[in-house]
Amino acid sequence: MTEPERLRADAVRNRTAILRATEELLTRHHPQQISMEQVAAAAGVGKGTVFHRFGSRYGLMRALMQERAQDLEIAINTGPPPLGQGAPPRVRLLAFLTAVVELVARNKGLLAALGPAAPVTAAPEQEPREAHPVYRSWHGHISQLVHQQRPDLDADMLAHVLLATLHSEPILNALERGDGNRLDRTLRDLVTGLMPE
Amino acid sequence: MTEPERLRADAVRNRTAILRATEELLTRHHPQQISMEQVAAAAGVGKGTVFHRFGSRYGLMRALMQERAQDLEIAINTGPPPLGQGAPPRVRLLAFLTAVVELVARNKGLLAALGPAAPVTAAPEQEPREAHPVYRSWHGHISQLVHQQRPDLDADMLAHVLLATLHSEPILNALERGDGNRLDRTLRDLVTGLMPE
Repeated sequence: MTEPERLRADAVRNRTAILRATEELLTRHHPQQISMEQVAAAAGVGKGTVFHRFGSRYGLMRALMQERAQDLEIAINTGPPPLGQGAPPRVRLLAFLTAVVELVARNKGLLAALGPAAPVTAAPEQEPREAHPVYRSWHGHISQLVHQQRPDLDADMLAHVLLATLHSEPILNALERGDGNRLDRTLRDLVTGLMPE
Repeated sequence: MTEPERLRADAVRNRTAILRATEELLTRHHPQQISMEQVAAAAGVGKGTVFHRFGSRYGLMRALMQERAQDLEIAINTGPPPLGQGAPPRVRLLAFLTAVVELVARNKGLLAALGPAAPVTAAPEQEPREAHPVYRSWHGHISQLVHQQRPDLDADMLAHVLLATLHSEPILNALERGDGNRLDRTLRDLVTGLMPE
């Protein structure tokens, strides 16, 4: 291994260690309770390395969320059914909603920490949630599947309605209490009502 | 009219004038764009009167929302069907959702300005949204109607899911563009799917 190769391998390993450490801390803490120092200590790297790679706690949380969203994206595009292609749209939609609820439930408040909360309270430097790449990707996938199965419905609005649950304070509180399966079942009831087998 | 009676009548008239002026301003502006001076000028009262009665813009918006929520509450409890008693639960639920969407659509961002946006961004002095009397009342009404019609469903979670739409940034943006009827129709599709005629 040449010196540049070794440095690059170190950087990749550090990045992975930092993201895994953050993930582990998030199973027990809110994003805003996690300090960069804690992350560095848990990852076994210097605090400077965390700041250098991610800029801020916001940058770190965003990178983690994007990584997970990418994993889900890969599963949708190239993975096996029911998440991936090959299953009927309604089955894919149900699988996707389950995956998204699980992703959000697994990360106490991570999504909420990333998105601006509501138009009036959004800091001016934050983009609107609609413009957030993760939101756009999820919205696009849901509305496409809805449209394939029920072209008579307002797929765009329905996708917003289903995703709104992931930004609702009472629902996020319920997810924290371990009620992810209740949200999943309710979304399943709603989708099944619109798209019977 | 005695002097105390006259003062009391003045106070009631001022309060009504202030709330109606705010309502009128809200048809054209976001809550955060409306100043207490504007409200006072539009109501034909002194700025001190507005501050004295409502404390702050937040207090004013909250009073207006509570007044409207009270009107809706009265319609539910003592008004004629389909909002009031006498219609089947599913019909009452559809009428209620239409009324709520209309109420929120009519007030650009008013509800969003009142509720804390998300757990992580909520100011510590604000109560969680679940504890907000308007949210609780609406949630209670929806879950009761769902339970009456479909006792097998998770009425509590379903009520949260339906109400989550009113705090979603992309949906509030759509309401601002005049898309209230699209939200109403989508909620109607969802409820009708779960509760066919």
